[in-house]
Amino acid sequence: MERIRDSFARQGMMHTLGARLEHVGEGVVRIVAEVSAATSQQQGAGHAGLTFSLADSAAGYAALTLMAPDREVVTTEFRITLLAPARGRLIAEGRVLRPGRRLIAVAADVWGEDDVHVATALGTMVPVSACPS
Amino acid sequence: MERIRDSFARQGMMHTLGARLEHVGEGVVRIVAEVSAATSQQQGAGHAGLTFSLADSAAGYAALTLMAPDREVVTTEFRITLLAPARGRLIAEGRVLRPGRRLIAVAADVWGEDDVHVATALGTMVPVSACPS
Amino acid sequence: MERIRDSFARQGMMHTLGARLEHVGEGVVRIVAEVSAATSQQQGAGHAGLTFSLADSAAGYAALTLMAPDREVVTTEFRITLLAPARGRLIAEGRVLRPGRRLIAVAADVWGEDDVHVATALGTMVPVSACPS
Amino acid sequence: MERIRDSFARQGMMHTLGARLEHVGEGVVRIVAEVSAATSQQQGAGHAGLTFSLADSAAGYAALTLMAPDREVVTTEFRITLLAPARGRLIAEGRVLRPGRRLIAVAADVWGEDDVHVATALGTMVPVSACPS
Repeated sequence: MERIRDSFARQGMMHTLGARLEHVGEGVVRIVAEVSAATSQQQGAGHAGLTFSLADSAAGYAALTLMAPDREVVTTEFRITLLAPARGRLIAEGRVLRPGRRLIAVAADVWGEDDVHVATALGTMVPVSACPS
Repeated sequence: MERIRDSFARQGMMHTLGARLEHVGEGVVRIVAEVSAATSQQQGAGHAGLTFSLADSAAGYAALTLMAPDREVVTTEFRITLLAPARGRLIAEGRVLRPGRRLIAVAADVWGEDDVHVATALGTMVPVSACPS
Repeated sequence: MERIRDSFARQGMMHTLGARLEHVGEGVVRIVAEVSAATSQQQGAGHAGLTFSLADSAAGYAALTLMAPDREVVTTEFRITLLAPARGRLIAEGRVLRPGRRLIAVAADVWGEDDVHVATALGTMVPVSACPS
Repeated sequence: MERIRDSFARQGMMHTLGARLEHVGEGVVRIVAEVSAATSQQQGAGHAGLTFSLADSAAGYAALTLMAPDREVVTTEFRITLLAPARGRLIAEGRVLRPGRRLIAVAADVWGEDDVHVATALGTMVPVSACPS
């Protein structure tokens, strides 16, 4: 899905966090990133903001896979539960729970090294025009 | 509050996002950061992960101001509502809603350029040992 | 605001919980209810579902005060933090954080006896047609 | 699990909503209730507070199945996404995502007639003494 890759490439935040798209399917997207000193909290594990960013982007792009080509999506609210320290290579999977014209309910999960379940999340995405604002 | 500044300095993520502590009070902390190409989403506004990271860290440090010196806090859950695109200089204010031995209820707000209310958030922090794990 | 009172009167749940509208203003609504044996949890305090219901309805009607006459609103997501046991007469205040055509960001707080802050909440309301479905 | 049934029977709110325990397993509980005029919103579907109450109680009792006999649990925060109108017989399933001494991460889902997915939720439960306060 070219448009997802294009949009991802324009997210400076994803580049800064060392994240890359691993999988783009119909309503499901996976993003991976290694926890590093640049994305850690004070105890050396991944910052909650790293885990959130990966989960949020994976969920947003999962929503985008179901949108018309002239649309983008933005996050309107996102709730994350952190289940274990984020260590090693993180895999964030976003998926669409309920598509809609006006808003899209999404979920995401993040796993770390040894398949530890690091986080689970629910959120809401809103379609917007793809023209940069 | 020396310990807050020490802990903040050890958060690689805060450095990566260009964030700095602006205010540390009893149960209230403010963190600021400029939106930049390195922390943007695909349309050039600040990524939700930037806004989240600032809100989460401000709330976490607000909780830490009320803890014993041998304690740290970690986020166990955080819910953010994004009210407007994040542009310009962001100010995130975290505050304690209800302190507790086992968990601390926190809130945070983020404002952007022209005092636009960018985000509001609720979360839960948990005290942990200050020894790096 | 007649329409708010009409809609409220049609909410069987509000009647069942012993709730009544106390204040209807532009973007702000307050609902009150006494905790009773019929709405308690196993320890005699108000059930989280009572506190949620009051907060949710207050926030929904706060949103409705800003809508065109042929619109209703429904909750699409709601997040509540419970700060203290719900006892006595509860006052739930809902308010609009950001109005919108497609979704309305709302907040709510609930206080109990002795002005104890029982709960704080954030949510999202969506406009729908006022015709019963 | 006798204690779950005892505690459930003492929840006036569950009785008021016409709810009953359908299944109690290790870390998983299901509660059912019919939407009725007494638990409806203004358009005749189940009130968000009904769906929340069932999800919250199912999740709380799922947590309780993993606790020592002298403990109860209370909800500290709960976030629900409403995916479809609540109609007919609702089944709420609560389950433990991560047990813990100080807090328990839980999830819940609610289905309605024709197996429609009505809601999904994440929450946090906190162990407390079983002595009524």
